[in-house]
Parts: sequence; C-alpha cells; structure tokens
Amino acid sequence: MNFSLRKKRASAAAKAAGVDGMLVTHLPDVRYLCGFTGSNAALVSVGGRATLFTDGRYTVQARAEAAGTKVVITKKPAVVAACEWLEAAGVKRCGFDATHTTVTALETMRKALSTKVRRGMFVALGPVVAGMREVKDADEINLIRTAALVGCDLFEGMLTYLEAGLTETEVAATLEYAARLAGAEGMSFDTIVASGERSALPHGRATRAKLPKQGFVTLDFGVILDGYCSDMTRTVHLGKAPPDERDVYDSVLEAQEAAVAAVAPGVTAGEVDEAARSVLRRVKLDKYFSHSTGHGVGLEIHEGPRLAAKQTQVLEQGMVITIEPGVYMPGRFGLRIEDMVLVTADGGEVLTPSVKAWVEL
Amino acid sequence: MNFSLRKKRASAAAKAAGVDGMLVTHLPDVRYLCGFTGSNAALVSVGGRATLFTDGRYTVQARAEAAGTKVVITKKPAVVAACEWLEAAGVKRCGFDATHTTVTALETMRKALSTKVRRGMFVALGPVVAGMREVKDADEINLIRTAALVGCDLFEGMLTYLEAGLTETEVAATLEYAARLAGAEGMSFDTIVASGERSALPHGRATRAKLPKQGFVTLDFGVILDGYCSDMTRTVHLGKAPPDERDVYDSVLEAQEAAVAAVAPGVTAGEVDEAARSVLRRVKLDKYFSHSTGHGVGLEIHEGPRLAAKQTQVLEQGMVITIEPGVYMPGRFGLRIEDMVLVTADGGEVLTPSVKAWVEL
Repeated sequence: MNFSLRKKRASAAAKAAGVDGMLVTHLPDVRYLCGFTGSNAALVSVGGRATLFTDGRYTVQARAEAAGTKVVITKKPAVVAACEWLEAAGVKRCGFDATHTTVTALETMRKALSTKVRRGMFVALGPVVAGMREVKDADEINLIRTAALVGCDLFEGMLTYLEAGLTETEVAATLEYAARLAGAEGMSFDTIVASGERSALPHGRATRAKLPKQGFVTLDFGVILDGYCSDMTRTVHLGKAPPDERDVYDSVLEAQEAAVAAVAPGVTAGEVDEAARSVLRRVKLDKYFSHSTGHGVGLEIHEGPRLAAKQTQVLEQGMVITIEPGVYMPGRFGLRIEDMVLVTADGGEVLTPSVKAWVEL
Repeated sequence: MNFSLRKKRASAAAKAAGVDGMLVTHLPDVRYLCGFTGSNAALVSVGGRATLFTDGRYTVQARAEAAGTKVVITKKPAVVAACEWLEAAGVKRCGFDATHTTVTALETMRKALSTKVRRGMFVALGPVVAGMREVKDADEINLIRTAALVGCDLFEGMLTYLEAGLTETEVAATLEYAARLAGAEGMSFDTIVASGERSALPHGRATRAKLPKQGFVTLDFGVILDGYCSDMTRTVHLGKAPPDERDVYDSVLEAQEAAVAAVAPGVTAGEVDEAARSVLRRVKLDKYFSHSTGHGVGLEIHEGPRLAAKQTQVLEQGMVITIEPGVYMPGRFGLRIEDMVLVTADGGEVLTPSVKAWVEL
C-alpha cells in the first residue's frame, strides 16, 4: 500500500479545504492513511506527514503496521494527545470529519486545547478521507478481487450443501467455518440466511428456522481478507418453484443485470439505481424493492458511493460498488441478487462471477 | 423484556434532565427501549411512550419486534422523520445522547425543524439510555448467563482440540463454528487467538501463524445469544513451560482473582482495578499490564462501567462486568485471564466458571 501517497493526498485535500491539517479518528480512515489496524487511534496529518496516537496495548503492533508513520504511545485518550500535539506543533486550523465525530468528542477535542487556540482550531469537514477511499488503487483492487473470489468459492460450496431441514444458523456456521479455513479474518457483516417466508425480510439474520422443502433461500455474506470486505447475495430455490416465484426471480435478475450494464465512469449513482428500478416498475414489482440498489465496498462494508434514487454522485474508474436489487413480498417470499462491480475505464467488471441463473436444488 | 417499564424509566430520566422527551438513535439503546433489532432506526420517547421510525426494509420486522411501540415506516432518513414528528407533537425541548450523535447528525436534526422551534429544541445529554443499561434486569441477566455458559462450553471443547501446528485462524474457525451450532447469532467481536510470541499482543486477532510446540495460547472470544454478548479469555500453555512463564501466569491469576474478590455493590470501579494492579505491582509486572481491568457487557460488548485506574463510578447490584488483567512482554510472551462477573447483593458472581488453574496441553 502506498501510504506515503495517501498521506500526501490527505494533505492536499486539507489544503483544498482551507485548513493546515486534519485530525483523523475514524478507524478505517486511520488504517487507510497509515496501515494501523488497532481499535484505539487518532492520527494527525499535517504537511504530508502523519503522527499516530494510540495506547500501550498497541506498542508492538503500531510500530510494525504503521512503519512509515511516527507513532506516539500515550496513556491519555488518543484524541486528547493528538490535540495537544496539534497545539504544540503550532497548527492553527485543523479539519475533522464531522460525519464521524460525536458532539462529545468535539467537546473533548476543544477542551484538550488552551483557550487561546481553542476558538479557531477545529473546522468541521465532511468525510474527506472516506471520500478518498471511494476510488480504490491497484493494491486495493487486488485485495478486493481476492476477497470477492473467496466469496464465490464459498457460494459454490453451498450449492452442494444446502438442503431442506438444515437450520439457517447451521448454514451460516458452515459457510463461516469454510470462510475462516479460506483465511478470512472475519465476516464483513452478520451472515444473512433467510429462507421460506423469511426470505421476505431483506435483512434476515440467520435464525434457528429450518430450510423449507419448497421455497427460496437467500444467502448474503462477505469475508474480510487483509482488511478488505467482500459482499455478495445469491438466492436459490429448494424444491420445485411455482411459476410466480420463478417470474419474480427472472425480473429481479433482469433488473440486476440492467443495473450492472449501466455501470460506467461518468454515469450517476441515481442512473444505475434507476436502471434496476425501471425493470421492476415495468412488471409492477418496484413497490416491493424497498431499499437502494447498492453501495461502495472496501475497508468498510458500507462506503460511498450510495446507489439510490436520484443520487447525483458520478461514478469514477476504480470505485467498487454493489448492485443488489431485491423484491420482498411480506408474508410470501422475497429474493435478492447482488454482485460486486468494479468501475473500469469504460464500464463495469463483475468481481463476483458466481452463477446468477435460476438454481433449483 | 419489560419494555414498558424501560420506556417509563427513560421518560423519568428525561424529566430529571429537564427535557420533555428524548431522541434515541444509538441502535442498542433503541433495541433496549423497544425490542427492534434493525440497522436503521430512530426512536422518540415522550411521556412514557415511544415512537419508532425505520424504513421499508423493516416493515414486517419492526411491527413484530417492537410490538408495544408505535412504528412509523418512512422513506426519509429515520432521524429526520423523528424530528419532524417532535415538532408536530409540540415537543419544545428534546434531549439527545451527545456521545453517540455526530456533529453532522446534530446538524441534520436541527435542519429537520422549522426555524421557529430549532433554537431551543435539542439539549445535549450524556449516554442516558446507555446508563440505564448498565444495571441489568432479571431477563437480561438470564440471557447473559446463558451466553456466558455457552462460552464456557466452547472453551471446554477447545481444551481437547488445541495442539501445536494448528493455525490461529483454524482455531478461530473451529471455535466460531461450534458457537454457531450452539445457536450463537454471531461472535461478540473478532475472535482473538494469540499464540507464542503473538500472545504479547493484547488484541491479536487470529492470523495464519501456527500454534507453537511450546508457548502460550490466549483465546479471547464471546458469543451473541438473543442480542446479549458474552466475553471471556483463557490462556493455556502448549508444551512444558519454563518457570518464568508459569510465574507470570500465577501472578496474573492472583491479580484476576483479587479483582473478582473485590467486586461488590458500593465499591468503585477504580478500587476493583487497583485490586488487580496492586498484585502485579508487588511482583513488578504492573508496567506490562497496559490496559484497564474491565468493562460492562450486555447488548454491546463494551458498555459502562469502565473499570480503570481512579474511576470513581460505584458498582451497583445487577451490573455485569469483565475482570481481565493481563501481562504482555513484547517480543517474549503475554497472557490474560478474563471472567464475566455479575454484581450481586453482597459481592460478585462469576458467570464464566471455566477452569482458570494452570493448563499445560
């Protein structure tokens, strides 16, 4: 990872925002800028250089992971030590990410300063570093590609394993065990296994419910490899499906493929969303598509850009997004199909090439 | 769960803080007050009643889980809908948890109001609901007790499984698979498996490192059952230990047991911390005990109270805390021993009765 370049870009962004430096406390942002993965950190970025503040638990780890960054081990809250450093370094105006800083944290930051510099120091910015993270560099794309393919392998394994009578938690257990053996540091989020009537719950975490003899099973899961998340959803049918279930599946698949086909640099997030939504609208299923079409993925499972109706953000080469329309009919059934897609120079490349055609097990 | 009582207590707390109601957006607090487990929610608590705002993904789930609470499904951000509701309901002063509300979220809240009520509406409070959650009720204690015992069973299973040559990730995989089969909805946090020299990392997530023929293996893990987290750490030794490793283990165990023995209502968190720290100070190991002694556990893995040096918070009956001193000698070895402890009427009850005596495998 080219942390040196990232730190320079962060400083350029600070300069563009009219501040002398930035105080970074959102942990994925800290990791992005210096490589440190610990659970307590504050990072100050000034003039292309960064100083990382953390506590004694991370003495060894911080120096190893953040090799190119000055590390300060402190007994104070990391953010307090960082603020004191800012004042001592003569920084006059420091930006912070108001979307990841609580009202209390800002108060703590201010109180860490002497009254003479307190007033002018902190300037509320948006998610500047998170914004930088939306466009992935080549190292990141490689890691994400690997994580996505591990996800696909796991799904392939599920195809010969899924059967009526297994509980959803058993399915999640088996999938997560295989993920760990494949080297995953963890899952990107709580594995969703939603079967039968529960498939109508877009966010149905695995329960002790048993997979039905006839009905959908939606698997939505991701692995974390080297810090980067994968995310994919497939829905398969157990037993012979009635025609209406098959019809809905085909419509969702058509919507999903239409949105994937719409991905390209210069296209807005809202246009990609509309590509999926308009297919479902045509067959009067849009009212059952109750969420947005997708989101960015990287160090966090949910990052920018957000692909929702009317979003004007323009896609850029190097973004990695999900395309995941679904239809959920309460009390009946539901399904979702999701790929990760890399925005390329002239379109979109699906990073999760698992089968999306109708699967009846 | 007695949500009705909790909502009344939240209203009483609001009244005591001089506000008419509270806007609750921290998801574990929302769950605590009404039972809803979805990932997008805002809850308004006024006069002993609550109204929950969420989106269309959760139409079915919200009405099922938050049965005693009015549910509003909205296409707007949940917090915006909640703020508009506050204004329409004539609420003049509404408290919010400044420790869980970002600077940007507060701005969004203010902008959702008309200018005539905006100025006086929002009053920054501390973590009022999280504070209520520190003392667990009987239903919660039952759930936590069950989760803790599942953790102990998992550890027992590990004792016949651990051996040199397994990778840390294989160990984590096996433990998490067993957790899932035991019904866990997930793990409380990324499972820590830190072996050999890596045992000197207090927060060493499992890696592809192999368990050594001779050395410590620290397992720190927890399961989530019905929303409640367990948390425990045990350190075992593979192969014959040199005397110094055994000595350090015995000191950490003595420190841990001293802190457990110190737990009682009326005792301060700092006194419990000091009970552990003073044992290690006596044998000159305190400088290697680089973190605090423990924390509350419940719907979140880290809750109040915080058991650290000089903390003046007084323990109360019904709190559930961890006691987890450790010693970490960079480049050499480290270990930690952790129990969950319930504060009872006259002392502390260990909820994780797994063996803590020296184990050499």
